[in-house]
Order: sequence, then C-alpha cells, then structure tokens
Amino acid sequence: MVKGHSETLMPNLQFTPIGVVRSSFTDTAAIPKGPGAKHDAEGTIELRPELEAGLTDIEGFSHLYVIWVFDRADGSELTAYPPSDDRPHGVFSTRSPQRPNPIGLTVVELLARSGTRLHVRGIDMLDGTPVLDIKPYLSSVPPDKMRRGWLEDAERRRHG
Amino acid sequence: MVKGHSETLMPNLQFTPIGVVRSSFTDTAAIPKGPGAKHDAEGTIELRPELEAGLTDIEGFSHLYVIWVFDRADGSELTAYPPSDDRPHGVFSTRSPQRPNPIGLTVVELLARSGTRLHVRGIDMLDGTPVLDIKPYLSSVPPDKMRRGWLEDAERRRHG
Repeated sequence: MVKGHSETLMPNLQFTPIGVVRSSFTDTAAIPKGPGAKHDAEGTIELRPELEAGLTDIEGFSHLYVIWVFDRADGSELTAYPPSDDRPHGVFSTRSPQRPNPIGLTVVELLARSGTRLHVRGIDMLDGTPVLDIKPYLSSVPPDKMRRGWLEDAERRRHG
Repeated sequence: MVKGHSETLMPNLQFTPIGVVRSSFTDTAAIPKGPGAKHDAEGTIELRPELEAGLTDIEGFSHLYVIWVFDRADGSELTAYPPSDDRPHGVFSTRSPQRPNPIGLTVVELLARSGTRLHVRGIDMLDGTPVLDIKPYLSSVPPDKMRRGWLEDAERRRHG
C-alpha cells in the first residue's frame, strides 16, 4: 500500500448478484475437496431474467469463469488450513472461504444453455450461492510454466 | 432465476479492497487489447499492511488470479463491442469493463514478493485499481478441450 493509505481510505464496493447457483450441494461437507477430489458435479447457473441478452454467444465457449460469493462463510482468517495439507498457509495461497472478501472463483465446463440457465459441469458451490459475474475462459498457462507451491510439496510428502 | 426471484430479493454484497494495483497505465487506451495483444507489462500489487500474513507461501506459485474492480468503468451494457471483433457479443461472453458487476479477472505471473508487495508480470489494469482478492492459479484447461467461441470466428474472418 502506498504511504498513508489505509482501510479507511479504501472505497466500499457494492455488488448485486447477477444470478444464483443451483446444485445438489446443500452442505459444504458434501463438496469434493482436497487431494484427488473430482470436480465433475453438474448444476445450473440461473441468471436474472433481465440479463439474458448478456449471454448472447456464450454457447461458443467450452469453459467459463464463474465469480461467486461464499455467502455462508463464517468470518475471515489470514491463515488457512486447507484439506489438501496438514500445514497452514496464508489465505491468499489457498481457496479457503474464510478470506477478507469471501469471493469464490470456479472454472466450469458449459454443457448447454436454455435462456438464462447455463447447465455446467464442475460445480463446487452450495445450492443458492450468489453469482457476481461470468466470463469466457480464454487461455491457459502452459503446464510446464506452472508451479503449484505448497500443494506440490504436500503431494510429495503424501506420496513419499 | 427461480420463480419469484428478482433483483429486489437479491442481497447487496459489500466488499473492501485488500489492496491496489501499481502499474504504468494511467489511461485505458495504453493497455494492450484485442488481436495479438501482448500482456507482459510488469507492475505491483500492494496489499494493506495488516493483510501481510495472508500472503504466506505465495512465492511457491508461479501464477496468481487477481480479482479486481473496474473502478473507472462507465455504467453497464448487456451488449459489448470487443476490440478483437467487428461484431457485438453478450457482455458475459466478453471481458468488457461495462458489465453488471464491474469485476475484472487477470492471471499474472508472480516474479517476486517483498512484504505486502507482489511484483508481477501480465498487468492489464490501470494504476490505482482496487484489488478484491488473490488466489493461486492451480490448474489449466487442456488446450484441446477449449473452445473460444466468437473469438475463434473473428480470428478466422481476419486471417481469411
């Protein structure tokens, strides 16, 4: 932060959900997490009816970013204990729900659209989760350029 | 949206930035956009001092997601005219700043950290842009599974 900047000088930013997630998950315990978790659950993202025109041409994209809110997260901690490790990590190094701004990000595969309903695979949100934004997934980091930090270390320790 | 749901029933969600982007871009016109744009500009993400512990172990990741706010976006339109095409598209099929919730998402490469300052490559935000969240970039969609919709069409039309 620049000198003199502090939270009191930071603007509060207000958003209204564009829609909601419909999924079979009503309890966070049911959502696959941690080592080897498969993210192939299907579900629906239902946008507000008046936003339908914003989805024009979305069917052309195989994958979408969904930006959403951990609306049932309980407070915020700077240290997180992820399910994929037995050691704590800084919250910004994890996907923990208990983060300063409880915003979630999921890449889903778009299977079909019907009006304002997007049928997708890869849901890891609770039923009723508010959605803030949807964007096309446009490019990937090449696997040989990617380092996954503590997650790689935890995998190594687990597998010997 | 489920029946009876409407914007009036949607909660308003309020966030406070965790920090700010420091970049050389003071005008959106200077940010590389559209076909063939290179995203190799370097810059800094400066978190609020009290959040430093949240960055523990972040150096282990080569790439980060940065979720930020188009704080100088002017209103919202459901139809966008992206620089990479001569045809309009639904706003959720684009990265247009003029979206219902003016939230931006950028994948950056982490070059170094010094306390609460992350030196990164791949900045496409204006200087002073508020940052809402930082997350580790953990996996990519395999290129052969990815379709890029209207962007592929526009590239084909451009190159014949």
